[in-house]
Amino acid sequence: MSNKKVVLAFSGGLDTTYCAFYLQGLNLDVYTALVNTGGFTAEQMAEAESRARSYGVVEHVNLEKTQDFYDECLKYLIYGNVLKNNTYPLSVSAERAFQALAIAKYAKSINADYIAHGSTGAGNDQVRFDLIFQIICPDVEIITPIRDNKLSRQAEIEYLKEKGVNISWEKAKYSINRGLWGTSVGGDETLTSNLTLPEEAYPSQVEKDGSEEVELSFDKGQLKGLNGKTMGAVEVIETLNDIASKYGIGRDVHVGDTIIGIKGRVGFEAAAPVVILKAHHLLEKHNLTKWQQHWKEQLANWYGMLLHEGQFLDPVMRDIEVFLENTQRNVTGTVKVKLAPYRFQVIGIESDKDLMSSDFGQYGEMNNGWSGEDVKGFTKILANQTKIYSSINND
Amino acid sequence: MSNKKVVLAFSGGLDTTYCAFYLQGLNLDVYTALVNTGGFTAEQMAEAESRARSYGVVEHVNLEKTQDFYDECLKYLIYGNVLKNNTYPLSVSAERAFQALAIAKYAKSINADYIAHGSTGAGNDQVRFDLIFQIICPDVEIITPIRDNKLSRQAEIEYLKEKGVNISWEKAKYSINRGLWGTSVGGDETLTSNLTLPEEAYPSQVEKDGSEEVELSFDKGQLKGLNGKTMGAVEVIETLNDIASKYGIGRDVHVGDTIIGIKGRVGFEAAAPVVILKAHHLLEKHNLTKWQQHWKEQLANWYGMLLHEGQFLDPVMRDIEVFLENTQRNVTGTVKVKLAPYRFQVIGIESDKDLMSSDFGQYGEMNNGWSGEDVKGFTKILANQTKIYSSINND
Amino acid sequence: MSNKKVVLAFSGGLDTTYCAFYLQGLNLDVYTALVNTGGFTAEQMAEAESRARSYGVVEHVNLEKTQDFYDECLKYLIYGNVLKNNTYPLSVSAERAFQALAIAKYAKSINADYIAHGSTGAGNDQVRFDLIFQIICPDVEIITPIRDNKLSRQAEIEYLKEKGVNISWEKAKYSINRGLWGTSVGGDETLTSNLTLPEEAYPSQVEKDGSEEVELSFDKGQLKGLNGKTMGAVEVIETLNDIASKYGIGRDVHVGDTIIGIKGRVGFEAAAPVVILKAHHLLEKHNLTKWQQHWKEQLANWYGMLLHEGQFLDPVMRDIEVFLENTQRNVTGTVKVKLAPYRFQVIGIESDKDLMSSDFGQYGEMNNGWSGEDVKGFTKILANQTKIYSSINND
Amino acid sequence: MSNKKVVLAFSGGLDTTYCAFYLQGLNLDVYTALVNTGGFTAEQMAEAESRARSYGVVEHVNLEKTQDFYDECLKYLIYGNVLKNNTYPLSVSAERAFQALAIAKYAKSINADYIAHGSTGAGNDQVRFDLIFQIICPDVEIITPIRDNKLSRQAEIEYLKEKGVNISWEKAKYSINRGLWGTSVGGDETLTSNLTLPEEAYPSQVEKDGSEEVELSFDKGQLKGLNGKTMGAVEVIETLNDIASKYGIGRDVHVGDTIIGIKGRVGFEAAAPVVILKAHHLLEKHNLTKWQQHWKEQLANWYGMLLHEGQFLDPVMRDIEVFLENTQRNVTGTVKVKLAPYRFQVIGIESDKDLMSSDFGQYGEMNNGWSGEDVKGFTKILANQTKIYSSINND
Repeated sequence: MSNKKVVLAFSGGLDTTYCAFYLQGLNLDVYTALVNTGGFTAEQMAEAESRARSYGVVEHVNLEKTQDFYDECLKYLIYGNVLKNNTYPLSVSAERAFQALAIAKYAKSINADYIAHGSTGAGNDQVRFDLIFQIICPDVEIITPIRDNKLSRQAEIEYLKEKGVNISWEKAKYSINRGLWGTSVGGDETLTSNLTLPEEAYPSQVEKDGSEEVELSFDKGQLKGLNGKTMGAVEVIETLNDIASKYGIGRDVHVGDTIIGIKGRVGFEAAAPVVILKAHHLLEKHNLTKWQQHWKEQLANWYGMLLHEGQFLDPVMRDIEVFLENTQRNVTGTVKVKLAPYRFQVIGIESDKDLMSSDFGQYGEMNNGWSGEDVKGFTKILANQTKIYSSINND
Repeated sequence: MSNKKVVLAFSGGLDTTYCAFYLQGLNLDVYTALVNTGGFTAEQMAEAESRARSYGVVEHVNLEKTQDFYDECLKYLIYGNVLKNNTYPLSVSAERAFQALAIAKYAKSINADYIAHGSTGAGNDQVRFDLIFQIICPDVEIITPIRDNKLSRQAEIEYLKEKGVNISWEKAKYSINRGLWGTSVGGDETLTSNLTLPEEAYPSQVEKDGSEEVELSFDKGQLKGLNGKTMGAVEVIETLNDIASKYGIGRDVHVGDTIIGIKGRVGFEAAAPVVILKAHHLLEKHNLTKWQQHWKEQLANWYGMLLHEGQFLDPVMRDIEVFLENTQRNVTGTVKVKLAPYRFQVIGIESDKDLMSSDFGQYGEMNNGWSGEDVKGFTKILANQTKIYSSINND
Repeated sequence: MSNKKVVLAFSGGLDTTYCAFYLQGLNLDVYTALVNTGGFTAEQMAEAESRARSYGVVEHVNLEKTQDFYDECLKYLIYGNVLKNNTYPLSVSAERAFQALAIAKYAKSINADYIAHGSTGAGNDQVRFDLIFQIICPDVEIITPIRDNKLSRQAEIEYLKEKGVNISWEKAKYSINRGLWGTSVGGDETLTSNLTLPEEAYPSQVEKDGSEEVELSFDKGQLKGLNGKTMGAVEVIETLNDIASKYGIGRDVHVGDTIIGIKGRVGFEAAAPVVILKAHHLLEKHNLTKWQQHWKEQLANWYGMLLHEGQFLDPVMRDIEVFLENTQRNVTGTVKVKLAPYRFQVIGIESDKDLMSSDFGQYGEMNNGWSGEDVKGFTKILANQTKIYSSINND
Repeated sequence: MSNKKVVLAFSGGLDTTYCAFYLQGLNLDVYTALVNTGGFTAEQMAEAESRARSYGVVEHVNLEKTQDFYDECLKYLIYGNVLKNNTYPLSVSAERAFQALAIAKYAKSINADYIAHGSTGAGNDQVRFDLIFQIICPDVEIITPIRDNKLSRQAEIEYLKEKGVNISWEKAKYSINRGLWGTSVGGDETLTSNLTLPEEAYPSQVEKDGSEEVELSFDKGQLKGLNGKTMGAVEVIETLNDIASKYGIGRDVHVGDTIIGIKGRVGFEAAAPVVILKAHHLLEKHNLTKWQQHWKEQLANWYGMLLHEGQFLDPVMRDIEVFLENTQRNVTGTVKVKLAPYRFQVIGIESDKDLMSSDFGQYGEMNNGWSGEDVKGFTKILANQTKIYSSINND
């Protein structure tokens, strides 16, 4: 009788390497899968594959999902100008859902009996993975050796040495998680409330002085070009990130509410995301009505919250997506942004859909669209309810 | 029979000077009133008084309302971290309501027959003034000579010359409105969508290089000290503004929806406000629960919107104020902020009420409060509804 | 030179008959247009046309827009379970936007110079008409003789007598406005706060005793049948209304905030609307997730409010419509409702999409989907934040 | 050495009687506590006490918390007009938090080592109890014999027989849970989606024909009298319930989302609650402004949801309470309601704070407060944004 199959979400790091051996020790056929949503280079994926194969797994696959991630999720974060607590662009965390989805679908496609992941019992990722797996493959059992066995790093290293794996697993001073939408950074400082990350903790170092202007093009809310050159959205993000991260733009430390109810603090570097979000937002401030902006903000923040909390598959997310998509029908134009060390400034926009460019009325200038008499009448009627209230109540 | 009385909201500028004479020309007894909510120095107020008296008005009063403005309004903007469209601290515009209130109460106290103000028919201020006046003094008639007569600057100057007023009314390249909570800046660029204000448009010029740290103290949400020195909130704002404006911090150009439905663009410089709001927000991210933060944001943004639109007297504003006040009961602690040219960074907080400082759980670290098994159960139950939904529906 | 053209929104009542003559008296070519959104019978429309022509107008058109009203608006009120202040199905008032739209488009199509309507200066309708006309035909001038001339009923009748119109314009004790989505009723009682309408004020009288069950069929949120017979939504509404109004169902008196800020009280009879809304809502309670229901309610109530206030053309309305439409993808099934004199009761639903019909879990019964241990873990983690908060704070 | 102490939430029913013996079998000193929040009569409490003592428990206490429940919770549900999903007044479920709070505080006061409750693993109550216990007494361990041992009713009865308890534990056809704020009813029908409860399932049977009017008095939102007689709120609720339940008023079957993610269906009879909520709501429609009503609804629905889900101790609940309290400052007046078999009708209100009673403006009637010209100006300005939008965009 053949062994049962387990799909292991594999990154090549210490925890998932431990899992690869541990699962084989349970007489399972191990299929390792690495999902790329923008954080891995081709070399890193090849290296992970070669490592996995050398560990004796039955199969390894690299699942390339960067464009899918943009098309099915990231796009909506941009439409929605989503910054969690007005701070954090959901760097990395947003990608977990897509990694989980890709793993779950792969597991289904090979009729796996188990899915394994290397999360500990202390963070958000375990919840994100488990949630998606249970919904997509309710009949597949989840195995989490690190969470269950509570091994120390040292114990894992010893175990691997016994298995003949002699890689040097030095713990970096700062744990780094790269993704298309930013890089998260953890360190001793992020475990405190009062210290911030030092310059050297960030993966990108400031290399440029002075300033430069970039121009982002949007077509119905989607990124369509950079500095006058047409390119796909993923390419815009990557190219802009190369440019802006050399200024040290988009760094911050966020403290937020985790899915499990405690506060968590995380550093991040997200040069392209913050520039794109603020540029897109500015274009919307010109092109959308007051109530469009109001409701977009409500729904988009909720979308970001549920996404952060692993609830990407709640059907309300699909409802919010069509709403956000629809709001973008006139979000077309270009936005100029000035980059400088550690900061940037949105300069202005050009758009055929700019509600400010109308001949109709110019703020603070006299106009032909209406008269002072009209505004008097407007104000009189607008005062009605509070005027009545005040005539009756003393408070 | 004695003349009827008019109270004129007086600033000493061209428009209100014109009004002072125009109203006297209507055989009205003119009472000029200047309301200070933080934008005028003692010298400026004395100068305005002396000018007004020289124009022959019956009476001039300087109404000092800075502390009232903080106590009855600004405090709540800080509690609520209010930045309109995540950009604009409502510099100046928030103060209009208090200026209108003070004028209306003064008019009532002297049994005025009319209130006059110098607003044009093209902006927000006319609505703000009219709204408040109508509610506080429904029986007092409002006169708006500039809006009604639609005179050009030149015509006003000619008129004043005839009256013997030979002040040089040069139009500044940039119109500046100072207030406790920031300074607004208008110019040719703010009438476009694509140009930003040049360095020289801002009233404060960058004088400092390098960086410095400041420490803000909050007690139940209220500003209580700066750099370890206890002081009142208004003093903190003024002192911090002196420090931070020398770095060119808190400048931006905002485009927003005016009360009259058109888009308006305004530059502003608000060094202390943006630093204070971000510092306060950080402290709340540590000390408040997820749902407290969520609802504060909803209510505070609404508060900011109604305030901006002149609806300060809607009774819902009082309801929101008690809500915001109540949320601040544990917002006590200090926040460190690093200032540098054109930017600042919130460093961290120290607070006895920090939900992160608990022994209870440390994000990303193993803990004693709960087990991996507990999180598994949590996630299983959390998945229930979407799991059921997915088992029935294909979408 | 030919006369200028005016399109008059014409109902055949006293006010619009007065307008028809008054406008001819201004040497305008009068085009009368009656828009039906479900409130007029074919006979009433023919009668209005024959009257209009007898008054000498250049042209009369009957614009049939009932199905359009359902397709472009009413459908969304059903999707959204919209009851203003949990009371009022927006009977009649929702139809005003469609009447205005049809008039405006007709005026555009014949290159009219003016649009006239018979609203007074005291209600909501003037605002609804003016808003839509200004947006659809910004260059067409609006004429409102009743509002402008402030004539009494008696003066209008005298004027018409002079013109040879000797219709008896008796004022009914109760003013009735019929529409597809209900009938509004005004009378002396609705001008008070403490009296309700008497039985005889309602256009439908109770003719049935006992009770009967009806079954409504929904397909993706749309009405598709009644009592097992497939029919279009408009037909379902009309047929159900015939049945249910004989029980006196759907009557109430609503007090609400008018567009102009005062409180207004209106009686209504809306048998089919209230039955349909509650039936649809019940189906959604079975088939949608918690957060879908939550956000639907937010957006739908806003939609109802803006619609009521004449803001049907704000682009956010289109965004909300796609959201609501998307939420209906699984709102398919039948709902049983029991009708009895003055009341009805939703009995239950049958649906393949019922989230309750799953084998997965049965409330209050033991189940196989999860264990008591899982719930313990769930609750432990769910308690985390408040537990931490309580360990630090005393409030 | 003395035994450890356990506090058992005791009702006298089969499950908690089983627990009383089971816990003694673990060599624990059992302290039974019954909390009354309005559902028990004095006789029932005396009977429970006598039973508990006969079972050999160390101590039994009856904790009377009805007034506390009103003062600290129910009051806010009335202020907020809370009907979950516009249907369910949170009968019974709202009281669980207060029962849990009282048990937890009692356990703390006697230094108990354990708290036990008789919930199964299938419903909401286990979560409500566990949540509150963990937060109030984080160091006290929770024991849930029914959830953990998964015994059948029959097995429990056998066990009790062995212990000499020979009560006849007939299972009623309908499970009934009484409380101050209504009675919940479960039966075979509520486990389906398509059947409703029969007449006999409801504890109150219809005894009255015809109709009668009642008058409720509110003072700042609080119940202060009935039919002209001053009485406390709890007494109003109880008295009104006696009157209205004889008409079969306030019955319905609700399907809702449980805390554990599945749908649950529950019948209820809540005569006084639904009458009170609709009466209070009507008074607010007259006395509060549009935005007060809007925000009250948002916050109150959230309050109801968190309360239903056991999150009464989240500090945001205190924030919402002060908001709701503040909104009630002018909710003073009387409301007439007509009761008839199976239905009721709100007739009207009388209040000095009625915004409709102002001389200022009368809906639909001409007025002195403003002119048709004012409304024209109002509408023109109100149209501005959509007019500009439409001049630029085609959608």
